[in-house]
Amino acid sequence: MDYSILEPLIRESRNQCNEGKVASYIPELSKVSGDLLGITVHEVGKDPVTAGECMPKFTLQSISKVFALLLALIDRGEQQVFEKVGMEPTGDMYNSLMKLEIVTPGKPFNPMINAGAITVTSFIEGDNVNERFERILSFIQKLSGDDSIYYNEKVYHSENHTAHRNRALAHLLKDNGILEGDVEEHLEVYFKQCAIETSCTNLARMGMILANGGKDPETSEQLIPKRYVQIAKTFMITCGMYNASGEFAIEAGIPAKSGVSGGILAVAPNMGIGVIGPALDRKGNSIAGIRLLTRLSEEWDLTIF
Amino acid sequence: MDYSILEPLIRESRNQCNEGKVASYIPELSKVSGDLLGITVHEVGKDPVTAGECMPKFTLQSISKVFALLLALIDRGEQQVFEKVGMEPTGDMYNSLMKLEIVTPGKPFNPMINAGAITVTSFIEGDNVNERFERILSFIQKLSGDDSIYYNEKVYHSENHTAHRNRALAHLLKDNGILEGDVEEHLEVYFKQCAIETSCTNLARMGMILANGGKDPETSEQLIPKRYVQIAKTFMITCGMYNASGEFAIEAGIPAKSGVSGGILAVAPNMGIGVIGPALDRKGNSIAGIRLLTRLSEEWDLTIF
Amino acid sequence: MDYSILEPLIRESRNQCNEGKVASYIPELSKVSGDLLGITVHEVGKDPVTAGECMPKFTLQSISKVFALLLALIDRGEQQVFEKVGMEPTGDMYNSLMKLEIVTPGKPFNPMINAGAITVTSFIEGDNVNERFERILSFIQKLSGDDSIYYNEKVYHSENHTAHRNRALAHLLKDNGILEGDVEEHLEVYFKQCAIETSCTNLARMGMILANGGKDPETSEQLIPKRYVQIAKTFMITCGMYNASGEFAIEAGIPAKSGVSGGILAVAPNMGIGVIGPALDRKGNSIAGIRLLTRLSEEWDLTIF
Amino acid sequence: MDYSILEPLIRESRNQCNEGKVASYIPELSKVSGDLLGITVHEVGKDPVTAGECMPKFTLQSISKVFALLLALIDRGEQQVFEKVGMEPTGDMYNSLMKLEIVTPGKPFNPMINAGAITVTSFIEGDNVNERFERILSFIQKLSGDDSIYYNEKVYHSENHTAHRNRALAHLLKDNGILEGDVEEHLEVYFKQCAIETSCTNLARMGMILANGGKDPETSEQLIPKRYVQIAKTFMITCGMYNASGEFAIEAGIPAKSGVSGGILAVAPNMGIGVIGPALDRKGNSIAGIRLLTRLSEEWDLTIF
Repeated sequence: MDYSILEPLIRESRNQCNEGKVASYIPELSKVSGDLLGITVHEVGKDPVTAGECMPKFTLQSISKVFALLLALIDRGEQQVFEKVGMEPTGDMYNSLMKLEIVTPGKPFNPMINAGAITVTSFIEGDNVNERFERILSFIQKLSGDDSIYYNEKVYHSENHTAHRNRALAHLLKDNGILEGDVEEHLEVYFKQCAIETSCTNLARMGMILANGGKDPETSEQLIPKRYVQIAKTFMITCGMYNASGEFAIEAGIPAKSGVSGGILAVAPNMGIGVIGPALDRKGNSIAGIRLLTRLSEEWDLTIF
Repeated sequence: MDYSILEPLIRESRNQCNEGKVASYIPELSKVSGDLLGITVHEVGKDPVTAGECMPKFTLQSISKVFALLLALIDRGEQQVFEKVGMEPTGDMYNSLMKLEIVTPGKPFNPMINAGAITVTSFIEGDNVNERFERILSFIQKLSGDDSIYYNEKVYHSENHTAHRNRALAHLLKDNGILEGDVEEHLEVYFKQCAIETSCTNLARMGMILANGGKDPETSEQLIPKRYVQIAKTFMITCGMYNASGEFAIEAGIPAKSGVSGGILAVAPNMGIGVIGPALDRKGNSIAGIRLLTRLSEEWDLTIF
Repeated sequence: MDYSILEPLIRESRNQCNEGKVASYIPELSKVSGDLLGITVHEVGKDPVTAGECMPKFTLQSISKVFALLLALIDRGEQQVFEKVGMEPTGDMYNSLMKLEIVTPGKPFNPMINAGAITVTSFIEGDNVNERFERILSFIQKLSGDDSIYYNEKVYHSENHTAHRNRALAHLLKDNGILEGDVEEHLEVYFKQCAIETSCTNLARMGMILANGGKDPETSEQLIPKRYVQIAKTFMITCGMYNASGEFAIEAGIPAKSGVSGGILAVAPNMGIGVIGPALDRKGNSIAGIRLLTRLSEEWDLTIF
Repeated sequence: MDYSILEPLIRESRNQCNEGKVASYIPELSKVSGDLLGITVHEVGKDPVTAGECMPKFTLQSISKVFALLLALIDRGEQQVFEKVGMEPTGDMYNSLMKLEIVTPGKPFNPMINAGAITVTSFIEGDNVNERFERILSFIQKLSGDDSIYYNEKVYHSENHTAHRNRALAHLLKDNGILEGDVEEHLEVYFKQCAIETSCTNLARMGMILANGGKDPETSEQLIPKRYVQIAKTFMITCGMYNASGEFAIEAGIPAKSGVSGGILAVAPNMGIGVIGPALDRKGNSIAGIRLLTRLSEEWDLTIF
């Protein structure tokens, strides 16, 4: 790949930052600068390449849903997971309650909306909250090859205190017979998983593992069964970018998952990509990050379609 | 009034009991016999008359919403209450979340649906949960002239442990900026208020006070401002019988409020009526109780229309 | 009644006109002046009294739904009408399609929303469109004692050409098995009925007949069975003022039906009232008309609650 | 590819037929036998291979939406088409009206649901209904290399007389300012396009052209711009299989579009596939056809993920 285009594409895309806004719904998130934009590209078998200004660390937020899903599939298998979580996009906001009320049997439509992600997290095995969270954390450390990854306590507490909507979703899931056990325990694991901090380089490496079918190219270890990687990539295309997933699939054609911190994990053919750009569009995606990935897909012909 | 028709009407209406079902969603409620039916009629200035089998005591459940509303209006006034709770029927189930999500600004449509009732209860003044609950209890004791009224702890605990849907509603209200303060505290007051136990005679006397414009005919004390009584009666017509309120208004034409215990409080011209019949129809109203009140309205011409 | 308060109340209420807007969705309706306000009060057994500026004639629009319902009940009886139209308020806009899609069995919730009114109109008997419309017209002429009443062709054509939403509703009703026969024929009758022109005096007299239980006090002829009048009045309380019906019931407490022309038909105890004030609030009710009726209800204590 | 597995897979998949039902909502469609199952595979540069029992001809129904979209893009360009039709899956039924009412600005979410498809068809250029339909027909004839393709008049008339729901959608689109011009004219073109009859061989060849990026491999003529083919394939993944699209993307991973006749057009890497199996599952997809494509994808590793 011609990496020399990265810096020009970043300059071009960064212009969009001022049309977006840094997330404010979690108070701790609102403190970063909106006009940052950075990217790391990690091709299978090559060294990662970074361009622009990657923040040292940012929280995964919704990007964590991909890894929680993969671990839940490893822990429980497809049948058990998809008994409680569907496979369909919703067309609604990621935090919508409506379909849980009006569509029988009230199970979340997919694992990328909050209701589905909370349910998926409830499937992570472990004897207690700490152990369950540690397993997610270890999984992410292993995929990114970075043992220093940890969660941001301030962001966790900030989210935990303001997450009334997620609490509403979780109690509704409990009422619908989807969520079992203690609601607050599941939410604690979920909020902590969202607060895990990674860098663009971490994201790019995790994406590279997925692009390689779940196998670590250095050790040849199969870290995730290939079938589960395919499932995750499919969800990233159909519901990875909130309710702008369809548009991103048409414009960029790359399986990707965004988070409200402004991060994006993308899994292109034979390469993983990590992007950070905290200014968000109205649907919650990094406005400059989407532009950057779309332009990169055009230049490098990354679409899977 | 010709009270001799009460027993024949009860016999006629009781036949409907086997088409209904005793509420099961609160485990403790499901233990009563479904084929009971009893009524007390209390005309202003007369002695109450009871017919059929009135259970000794049953929990108010949603009937308590009327009295919480009245007390909240006394505590806070119309402006403050209706800033957070609307005046419109919804056409939806009493525990629906949908309009809180899709209708801006996400405030409950009226005080008779659960979301509205929880909000109303949050307005009851008091330094702590106990004091707030005690004030509701005292208000009901005073209106019914019965100091022995208390709440049923088993029903309260039963509801508290299974009320996932109400928790979902409360957290959504918190997220919408409707509910302030601690969600669990408001729910504790609300569940306790629902678990207050009264008899048909209690209900009939409270209804009689409302029929008399809020004034106790024995002491001439104005227990509730007349304007608030009118507000309560209007809500009883437009939303008192869950989403069968419109039908009951057409069939019986009496302001009334039902509870999932099978109780009904009715406020006819110059008289209060208390009914108990635990077998419920699909919308949550006492199936035989509705029949009985409809027939009584025809016989005594009680409609306000 | 003290009629001398009418003019002061009108002056007071007219100030609200500039907060409202004349309806524009039917082009022909948008041509009137917004700051008019007039009223006619017609007590049973007395002469009508008019105050303010009553426009000579205005179209009934949704007010016609009351009379179509009464005639449909006369033609078909309660059972047949309510098999296809419900009795519940919706909480939604008068032209909403949502509940027809998501609530089984897809029948309109009540006869005051457009879907219900179109269905009710389909029940009016007659060999053809003209005959069916003539029967509605005659019924209204008879109730108002005014043979000169006719419909406004320009308004009819204006509505017929722009009524895409009503066409959508009608075809959906056809799909749901609610509407039988030719959709366009039913719509022609419906649009013509909405375009019938009356004066405040006409409305007041028709309201007076309803206030008198359906009997013409001059001839003692029972023009409408009393039971059907009660049904109509109940719907006027629960759903007569679009999705502000609950609020109007609380503020004024009078059965009433508004139209997008700015007219209001009100049925107070022992009197009919006709109001015209073309400036509408956001829910489609005459903004000054609502104020005027609310103040009048306070002054004359007209509430039924 | 090893074509010898086709017959065994068909035998295996055909067992599912009796769990499905032939479409009955268009009377003319209900007359075919439910236990048929046939497939044609057409690899780029090879001869088509057919297995099982392909019906001689069946109507395209919703499969036609793909070709109408492609032609509309050719006629109007991306900007004009996507100004009126979105790019997002809905999670709702293909004939749902709800999002057109509750999501501003009321434009169809994508071109694969009926509302979107009717809008897309309204963009097909031509001086009149016949010319517009002829252009769609010619486009399909050219892509399939079969000049004998025509529409089934009986199916067209059958659909035209019973399509109340589609009429409701079209009038709502008109009201929302999405559909311009005469509603009935657009519907005529749409119903005729749905009634175009093709064979499995036709579908497979059209799919092969799409798999080849829009270029006819025999003549090297670029029949469709590659960009538009990518757009169509993306919609086939995200919304091609009604509201089971997400599941099919996960299970089979092939861009595909189904029709209520039981046909499926699939575009696998380097090959087009046509399937017919009239017995449908509850979401409207060929029940045995889905099974067959899923198994084939496993055997030949056809997933794009």
